[in-house]
Amino acid sequence: MDKLKKMIVERGEVKEGNVLKVDSFLNHQLDVEFLYEMGEELYNLFKKRNITKILTIEVSGIAIAAMAALYFKVPVVFAKKSESLNLDKDVYKGKVFSYTKNKEYNIMISKKYLNESDRLLILDDFLAEGNAMKCLIELAGQSGATVEGIGVAIEKGFQKGGNYLRSHGYNLKSLAIVDEMKNGTIIFRED
Amino acid sequence: MDKLKKMIVERGEVKEGNVLKVDSFLNHQLDVEFLYEMGEELYNLFKKRNITKILTIEVSGIAIAAMAALYFKVPVVFAKKSESLNLDKDVYKGKVFSYTKNKEYNIMISKKYLNESDRLLILDDFLAEGNAMKCLIELAGQSGATVEGIGVAIEKGFQKGGNYLRSHGYNLKSLAIVDEMKNGTIIFRED
Repeated sequence: MDKLKKMIVERGEVKEGNVLKVDSFLNHQLDVEFLYEMGEELYNLFKKRNITKILTIEVSGIAIAAMAALYFKVPVVFAKKSESLNLDKDVYKGKVFSYTKNKEYNIMISKKYLNESDRLLILDDFLAEGNAMKCLIELAGQSGATVEGIGVAIEKGFQKGGNYLRSHGYNLKSLAIVDEMKNGTIIFRED
Repeated sequence: MDKLKKMIVERGEVKEGNVLKVDSFLNHQLDVEFLYEMGEELYNLFKKRNITKILTIEVSGIAIAAMAALYFKVPVVFAKKSESLNLDKDVYKGKVFSYTKNKEYNIMISKKYLNESDRLLILDDFLAEGNAMKCLIELAGQSGATVEGIGVAIEKGFQKGGNYLRSHGYNLKSLAIVDEMKNGTIIFRED
């Protein structure tokens, strides 16, 4: 998606340790009109898959999932991190290791909101090592739902998540793939 | 907002300890088309205030803020809980005590995304004791921005947050105010 690449170049920041900061429009301040355009792009990529529900994970996946859901006209379910006293005990659950935060955390989804008749589109803002994504797939598997597609805004192509998912047969589409960040210059994979 | 009251009655659950669970449409599974309608309602309530930015707090405020922002055509900024390695050190910050989780946590907003020229609408899904809201107001104050309005989906009228904010002169609008939850029956305040 050319506009996303342009936004990343103009409004993103490359930080030490291959960190790409896009909190000016994607995950702290939200450019909602642009997120809505990304939602439309995701709709065009997956609209033939008869999606019944969009699955994502708190926090940064929520806004993009909600925008896409306006096009798909289906509910969003977001997996929750750590246990809340308000959350049902009857949950699908798994563990994710976060490199960004250097810790493991639990994620869970109430069993009420995913079941075997669901045809899921899983969305997130970033794909790097793919740990959160693998755990969402595992939770979807626990419910018996099928994963019809996986969409992410920004894939870090030099990390393993994308290759892993494609080689395991998942229908993964990334709106922008960053293959290299060298001296602050961002190199995208050709579409 | 009559439709919200109807959703609360039909799809909400009253749990022990005056907990109202609305995770079937508002904060775990998201009924995005309904959230979009709430966004429109909030727009109608605050559209005369020349809002430049919508402020909310992760997690559950994000979806409703994003929907409202589509109407206002302004960015959303969401305050982050706990420190992430990816977050700027140059932040407005404060502490919130959560009764639901029975612990204190830090919230912060990058200084880049709020400033004295901003006219803010602060939005959240719930207002109970108002601790998170007071902290958002404090962070807005640190930036010099003005708080033009506060909108919440569901106010628990039997807790102190709403009274506190109104008595301090804030332009608070709640789409539904629950005054009592007695033996599972929900009593709303009259509009």
